[in-house]
Amino acid sequence: MLPVDLPDTVREALLAPLVDHHCNGVRRDELSRSQFELLIGDGGGPAPPGTTHFDTPFGAAVRRWCAPVLGLAPHVTPSVYLSRRAELGAGEVNRRLLRAAGVAAFLVDTGPESGELLSAAEMGRHADAAADEIVRIEQIEHDVAEMARIAVDYLDSLAEELVARAARAVGMNTVIAHRCGLDFDPSRPSRGSVIAAANRRLSDPKERLTDPVLLRHLLWTAVDVARERGLPLQFHTGAGDADVEPHRADPARMTGFIKALQPIGVPVVLLHCYPFHRQAAHLAALFPHVYVDVGQALARTAAGAWRIMDEVLELAPFHKQLFSSDCSGVAESCHLGAVYFRRSLGVALKPRVDAGEWTAADAARVAHMVGSGNARRIYRL
Amino acid sequence: MLPVDLPDTVREALLAPLVDHHCNGVRRDELSRSQFELLIGDGGGPAPPGTTHFDTPFGAAVRRWCAPVLGLAPHVTPSVYLSRRAELGAGEVNRRLLRAAGVAAFLVDTGPESGELLSAAEMGRHADAAADEIVRIEQIEHDVAEMARIAVDYLDSLAEELVARAARAVGMNTVIAHRCGLDFDPSRPSRGSVIAAANRRLSDPKERLTDPVLLRHLLWTAVDVARERGLPLQFHTGAGDADVEPHRADPARMTGFIKALQPIGVPVVLLHCYPFHRQAAHLAALFPHVYVDVGQALARTAAGAWRIMDEVLELAPFHKQLFSSDCSGVAESCHLGAVYFRRSLGVALKPRVDAGEWTAADAARVAHMVGSGNARRIYRL
Amino acid sequence: MLPVDLPDTVREALLAPLVDHHCNGVRRDELSRSQFELLIGDGGGPAPPGTTHFDTPFGAAVRRWCAPVLGLAPHVTPSVYLSRRAELGAGEVNRRLLRAAGVAAFLVDTGPESGELLSAAEMGRHADAAADEIVRIEQIEHDVAEMARIAVDYLDSLAEELVARAARAVGMNTVIAHRCGLDFDPSRPSRGSVIAAANRRLSDPKERLTDPVLLRHLLWTAVDVARERGLPLQFHTGAGDADVEPHRADPARMTGFIKALQPIGVPVVLLHCYPFHRQAAHLAALFPHVYVDVGQALARTAAGAWRIMDEVLELAPFHKQLFSSDCSGVAESCHLGAVYFRRSLGVALKPRVDAGEWTAADAARVAHMVGSGNARRIYRL
Repeated sequence: MLPVDLPDTVREALLAPLVDHHCNGVRRDELSRSQFELLIGDGGGPAPPGTTHFDTPFGAAVRRWCAPVLGLAPHVTPSVYLSRRAELGAGEVNRRLLRAAGVAAFLVDTGPESGELLSAAEMGRHADAAADEIVRIEQIEHDVAEMARIAVDYLDSLAEELVARAARAVGMNTVIAHRCGLDFDPSRPSRGSVIAAANRRLSDPKERLTDPVLLRHLLWTAVDVARERGLPLQFHTGAGDADVEPHRADPARMTGFIKALQPIGVPVVLLHCYPFHRQAAHLAALFPHVYVDVGQALARTAAGAWRIMDEVLELAPFHKQLFSSDCSGVAESCHLGAVYFRRSLGVALKPRVDAGEWTAADAARVAHMVGSGNARRIYRL
Repeated sequence: MLPVDLPDTVREALLAPLVDHHCNGVRRDELSRSQFELLIGDGGGPAPPGTTHFDTPFGAAVRRWCAPVLGLAPHVTPSVYLSRRAELGAGEVNRRLLRAAGVAAFLVDTGPESGELLSAAEMGRHADAAADEIVRIEQIEHDVAEMARIAVDYLDSLAEELVARAARAVGMNTVIAHRCGLDFDPSRPSRGSVIAAANRRLSDPKERLTDPVLLRHLLWTAVDVARERGLPLQFHTGAGDADVEPHRADPARMTGFIKALQPIGVPVVLLHCYPFHRQAAHLAALFPHVYVDVGQALARTAAGAWRIMDEVLELAPFHKQLFSSDCSGVAESCHLGAVYFRRSLGVALKPRVDAGEWTAADAARVAHMVGSGNARRIYRL
Repeated sequence: MLPVDLPDTVREALLAPLVDHHCNGVRRDELSRSQFELLIGDGGGPAPPGTTHFDTPFGAAVRRWCAPVLGLAPHVTPSVYLSRRAELGAGEVNRRLLRAAGVAAFLVDTGPESGELLSAAEMGRHADAAADEIVRIEQIEHDVAEMARIAVDYLDSLAEELVARAARAVGMNTVIAHRCGLDFDPSRPSRGSVIAAANRRLSDPKERLTDPVLLRHLLWTAVDVARERGLPLQFHTGAGDADVEPHRADPARMTGFIKALQPIGVPVVLLHCYPFHRQAAHLAALFPHVYVDVGQALARTAAGAWRIMDEVLELAPFHKQLFSSDCSGVAESCHLGAVYFRRSLGVALKPRVDAGEWTAADAARVAHMVGSGNARRIYRL
């Protein structure tokens, strides 16, 4: 899995257990070929007629790296792979793939939780790892909006529920990038504007929240809680599901908000970031409270992941970068996130050591910091 | 031309005839040095005093790869190259370079057609290849605007002419990115606003159309025709001639329009894309009807093209990427487009095979899909 | 320092003395560890508790490449390095590092001048090199605003002072990117609007100028002077100190202004550019009066600098690219700027020569142009 001829200390550091600081529960049930394809495609829909989502970098990586975990030769065809998957059963497949990832602790985004997905605790049990919760603030808002009758109740419940849910969590996360873009007004909205927006909201509480005033209110309320409890706040950024134009998810767009948070001291963790990961690394270099990871991009780009890792290492301070698998849907995404993290970090470190830029001890220390040390520090694990 | 030690199957797939799904006619006449320089420079003007457009990646590539096609040693000086070019004559030069490209079928953008340029049929004859037409909708509008007297005639003629021209073509293309930017309002404009804009337009019909309302009307009318006839719609995107700010030609800006076309089913083909090719690859991964190519960038960046190819392969599904030379002006751009496509795809595939990420058969299949298979499928050749 | 097995001509061209067309004076005084850390961090503040700015690409590069210049082994610890630095004294350290850079001429941005920093003349004396001045127009404005009483005096003094200061300089530079963004209105502001803004300005003249009307007035006045005297105008672009959102420092945003300057003939030099260096290279290819360098990025990204250099070479004409160290704060940044320029250009040229894309003579000529020839031409040294 790692490049050959790495110094032993670097190899050991790369193979050490990881802290996966952002992942999602994976499906617990048996999946048909069409269900599996829907879960591995980027857009959530089927591949065009005559094509398959296996014809992607991620699909090729499933055949290469997950097949052996299921006891198959590398590069088997999709149908052989899926037959074996069905034969083993979802539970065994999930256990094998989650364990193969070599993760010591999962921080699970419980936002998309549903009966179909493994819970945080189950993720841990399947993988023989620790598991903690990252709460998604838009999910809390959704739950509150469905229950509240009047705006004041909504606001009170929101604050209470954020406090209550944060009490069990090691961090919070927000998808505001994909609800209204990261170029939102960085100021805290006035109480009057929030009340007015809340009244509109309660007339249609089942809708996904996209109102920028309420999203900002939610975010600032979460900031208060995060400050109180010393929790990091994760932001989904970069290429997402195109609810808003992708360029509006460039984390550089939220520089104003980042500056507003600097005196407050809440750590801002930029997730995914691709293809804006260089901008994110610059923000992590510039601001003491900003952290960066390229989680999702590594498994999606698979054989091309090494360049993305290398581009983040161009500028990001070593104490600011984190690992996540951003696994979701299928356990394959967890294993591949870990494989391509280790592999691409190895590919990035090797020429630095070979060319005498860094010592092997430096490289090993960086691998340790990025793979687990930084996460243990900022999430206080 | 290809990296050494490629598996034979991959080598053969890369050397197989290509479908060039977007090119322009090249000049048929003899060219002086200053005319040749104007045609190979990016900005359309002469190089600054004391410099030459041969001192560019493209210029160096002409000396390296085109000189041998004209019977010269690689790397001859510009003046030796141009003397030989004059000696052979434009007809022979065009035949040699277009044939050397190894293209089975040209899809020729007939928008910039003029007596100086080879027609689609002539491109085919010179290269001993098939040739089909891609109609440029802004050129049709230009022709219609010059003839129409009143707004209603303009609108009727536009619709009729689009239908008539599309009937002979295998696709349509638009340069709206360079007329008003890709951040245009994605909705279909109202008839009232179109009539009003058409009346303004007809007072100065020789001007290049830049009115966003009429450009959107033209685009939506073209969408109707494309749907009717099952034709793909090509969008010029990325670094262009700076009629609008380059960042407004980022294809991510037209995500709203792409989403509006999704239920309609018209394939959207993103041309060029550089330096936004990662954003384009993400859109191709996200939306079933979006395709991507980096045509123009490969010959322009020449010795640096391999990275661009590799960056598209990071995320683009294999069934979504296409080859184009985007040749224009001189036939050298056609040969270099094909050289750097094959070369850079080879450079991208080799480490994937060597590292065991993909099998040689996978790599060969990807080369075939991108080089010709995908184009044959979506243009129904 | 250079890749092994480079042809001798290329090696010699890379090792030839450079013209550093944009640098800043470095600190003349003894620096404590905390002062040194503040100067090598990107954000201007201390590293988060428990971390150090030595854990960055730049910090690792100081240990690798500067330690030997101070007579230490490569990769010594930060504390050993700083002890040795204190032992030698700031004067000796500055002399050693500035000389080790191998620079024949410094063009020093005197904008941030203060008693703590070496002046342009001192930079030259310490390095045994020539030194000339680049005047920062916002600094001139600041000096004028503090003296003027009424708007008319302010405007007159501004024009006079720009003329006077430009008379001693070889170029001018502007930080408008970080004051109001590069998406400013490219037109020259009306006299009325300037007078009104000047009156507002004079009520608080000690503030940093951020008013877009006065910034544009200043810029256009500088353009007049630059045209008169044949001086290039440098623009800070790309990742900066986040006074404005980083994406607004993308040089593509100022395409309109670039076009407005084209008939005037004033050279526009785009500094730094990262992570928008591909956009900058495109502008340099498109417009005859636009030049590009990635100065600051090379030392900051250090072991990762080679890719940035290579990405600029993708598209920038060879007669359009320049070298700068953008050194500031500590003399280490000058030496590292030169090290990573030579090293990354060598890494970019080697595969081009090895693959037969360019001859060794071509590569040597490009190294000479970018390292010093282009700067000598446009600054008329």
